[in-house]
Amino acid sequence: MKNYTKIKDISNLSEIIKDAILLKMNPFEFEDLGKHKTLVMLFFNSSLRTRLSTEKAAKNLGMEVMILNVNDAWNLEFEDGTIMNVDKSEHIKEAARVISQYADIIAVRAFPTLQDKAKDESEYILNNFKKYATVPIVNMESATAHPLQALADAITITELAEKVKPKVVLSWAPHPKALPQAVANSFIEMMQDLEVDLTITHPEGYELNEIITKDTSINYNQDEALKDADFVYVKNWSSYKDYGKVNNQDKNWMMTKAKLGHAKFMHCLPVRRNVVVEDTVLDSQQSVVIKQANNRTYAAQIVLKQILEAL
Amino acid sequence: MKNYTKIKDISNLSEIIKDAILLKMNPFEFEDLGKHKTLVMLFFNSSLRTRLSTEKAAKNLGMEVMILNVNDAWNLEFEDGTIMNVDKSEHIKEAARVISQYADIIAVRAFPTLQDKAKDESEYILNNFKKYATVPIVNMESATAHPLQALADAITITELAEKVKPKVVLSWAPHPKALPQAVANSFIEMMQDLEVDLTITHPEGYELNEIITKDTSINYNQDEALKDADFVYVKNWSSYKDYGKVNNQDKNWMMTKAKLGHAKFMHCLPVRRNVVVEDTVLDSQQSVVIKQANNRTYAAQIVLKQILEAL
Amino acid sequence: MKNYTKIKDISNLSEIIKDAILLKMNPFEFEDLGKHKTLVMLFFNSSLRTRLSTEKAAKNLGMEVMILNVNDAWNLEFEDGTIMNVDKSEHIKEAARVISQYADIIAVRAFPTLQDKAKDESEYILNNFKKYATVPIVNMESATAHPLQALADAITITELAEKVKPKVVLSWAPHPKALPQAVANSFIEMMQDLEVDLTITHPEGYELNEIITKDTSINYNQDEALKDADFVYVKNWSSYKDYGKVNNQDKNWMMTKAKLGHAKFMHCLPVRRNVVVEDTVLDSQQSVVIKQANNRTYAAQIVLKQILEAL
Repeated sequence: MKNYTKIKDISNLSEIIKDAILLKMNPFEFEDLGKHKTLVMLFFNSSLRTRLSTEKAAKNLGMEVMILNVNDAWNLEFEDGTIMNVDKSEHIKEAARVISQYADIIAVRAFPTLQDKAKDESEYILNNFKKYATVPIVNMESATAHPLQALADAITITELAEKVKPKVVLSWAPHPKALPQAVANSFIEMMQDLEVDLTITHPEGYELNEIITKDTSINYNQDEALKDADFVYVKNWSSYKDYGKVNNQDKNWMMTKAKLGHAKFMHCLPVRRNVVVEDTVLDSQQSVVIKQANNRTYAAQIVLKQILEAL
Repeated sequence: MKNYTKIKDISNLSEIIKDAILLKMNPFEFEDLGKHKTLVMLFFNSSLRTRLSTEKAAKNLGMEVMILNVNDAWNLEFEDGTIMNVDKSEHIKEAARVISQYADIIAVRAFPTLQDKAKDESEYILNNFKKYATVPIVNMESATAHPLQALADAITITELAEKVKPKVVLSWAPHPKALPQAVANSFIEMMQDLEVDLTITHPEGYELNEIITKDTSINYNQDEALKDADFVYVKNWSSYKDYGKVNNQDKNWMMTKAKLGHAKFMHCLPVRRNVVVEDTVLDSQQSVVIKQANNRTYAAQIVLKQILEAL
Repeated sequence: MKNYTKIKDISNLSEIIKDAILLKMNPFEFEDLGKHKTLVMLFFNSSLRTRLSTEKAAKNLGMEVMILNVNDAWNLEFEDGTIMNVDKSEHIKEAARVISQYADIIAVRAFPTLQDKAKDESEYILNNFKKYATVPIVNMESATAHPLQALADAITITELAEKVKPKVVLSWAPHPKALPQAVANSFIEMMQDLEVDLTITHPEGYELNEIITKDTSINYNQDEALKDADFVYVKNWSSYKDYGKVNNQDKNWMMTKAKLGHAKFMHCLPVRRNVVVEDTVLDSQQSVVIKQANNRTYAAQIVLKQILEAL
């Protein structure tokens, strides 16, 4: 693997999932692989799970980790040819090249503005790092994608599936704040590559990017969509059409024990209890969110391992 | 040791002090013990000494350390059954369980509000981590206790005592800001378990929690209390009765060379010079505050060592 | 080496440069030297390159690294004898001594106020750490000096020089913000110790500290100064005479391809494109700024190595 910025960077999904599950059984097996190698983690936005699981994954492989929380003091310019006489103190061209000399792999987290759709979809932060860095780039959640989360999700479904082609439903949920579409996007793309029967359900107006969803069935009726589901992945996202807006907070879309049926409940966390999902779901044996979070470590570790092997 | 959240978690104090002093002579003797083990340090409040000494202690034992400064982006809910549709983005139930999967031990710092006494005394942050985490918890100063500091204090007194049962005086000092009672509380509890003659002195109205002080003599007359002291531990705390208030800034309570007599001067640091204690005390050979701070490392290290051995 | 707070702490420059170049070829050769040794990095100001390169250097030598971003919660007092009853919570006397017990080497970054010249020139933060710490101090950019940067610059010039005594020009550039003189000061002092022909060029009124520049030729005519230059180091600094002021933003002082001639272009980064220097310069083969930034690691590493060897 050269980079891991999007789902399509995975060439052999079933192989990578199998290897991740093996890693989980023996996390330190490849601890010599990362010796004398450094992961630089750059956070343009705050992080809990991604930060800890990716740092742990790197250390399990014997890597050194250097973490930089990017603050206002380091305001990067991404445009070409500008006269940088206002607020931007450094150009991505220098920044990415310089950090590449201190790192063997660079991991980047950079959320969308949720205000400028074209800018967000250009993935200007992630893609400019990819363009100018001279080492591999790992996406720790960008404007439109969260491929490490989606890989953890795929590992979780593979581990827990009780049939060959389980029914997986991605069900939108209400939320008071405007959240990115990144997790939903990457989950859908990942599921399209996995042997599952995927359905998406959300209120009208909450359609995601058609380029991503075009081959997947969408059902505006949550009850119908959830019928006979094996896994229900619940997630809020703000409107993609009316970009970044929160037009709907309909409590009827909250996941409940009754709606869930016998399915396993998934969520990327953090999750707002009794807004996105009822307590009774999260506190039941059907919730696999803690296992999902645990798989974040092994998703990151298998990605870093493959990148290290290809260096 | 299963957890170290309070003084009572220590079962054999003299043994643990002896072992800490041995560790200081050979800090790397057990550097294989922490191999492949991770300490996650969570700071809800800022830290200097505790941060550096605990991180160093963990690394002396060969542990990996991951540090998270919790900021506003991660606003935890601690109540059960709430509808999380306002400002709280994650429930402690998920947070503690998830972090437990990335950590072998979790250390938490969470100061009191100093406004809501009942809430502070419930130790809701620390105790909820203890309740929901699936790994041991270490208290890096909570609302009402600072047991790592108290253990460092006990080590220091044991090292420097020149008689079998030294007289130890805890003497309140003025301070412009409202400070927690945590250090004083844990020091008293620790001294109650150590072979010392303990006296507390403070102005009227500055009585600490009676549950903690009930077996210890309190003298409102500082001069009387200090008579023939071997160790004088000076510390400000805000009022416990008139909770969190600064009702007294009487400069006469400041520690001076004259008052100190031949005693050794102790303080947990940071200390405000010429407010809490005169320069002449801190700059004299009688001050042992630097030694105390050094013992923070070995207090943390013996605690982590005992927890690792019990995993 | 006992400390590295200023250029004069280097006793044998050609030797140290030669050793740094050897380190670059084999960065892990001395990875046992730092075993069980800890570098504490204290940042009173934010940092990218210095942070990552120094951390990496320490880890290349096998050291443990503990990083503390000093924030408002830790407001240090540097004056003697003050009554600390306002905003300062800890005195440097305690702080430096305490941290010395957790560290084998302390590295400090503390920028100037650019308002109080006498205070800045006293280097009160750096020098008080040096005074009270009981371990070596490394300067990661102080009020008036940036010796790690200057050492990286000297390594870069030595590596790339095509003649015995190359002509090196330090050329002032415009910048919208008030920047320190530290980089320029240390570069000049370093070049004075290297076998080069140094010229400084800047607008009238931008004279640096005469104590530093007294043996170096200054030419107010940029064109004349740049004639036949082999290396052109471009850098803005705010006025030293009219202390900390930005009195001149004359675009004619920006470095261009035409002015540069056949010289190599140097800058410490971050650099504002098309303000300090034209895109065409930075994007050409004549720019060596990325190599310079890479040498930051080996400058820090040779300094830490020499300090470790002298412990």
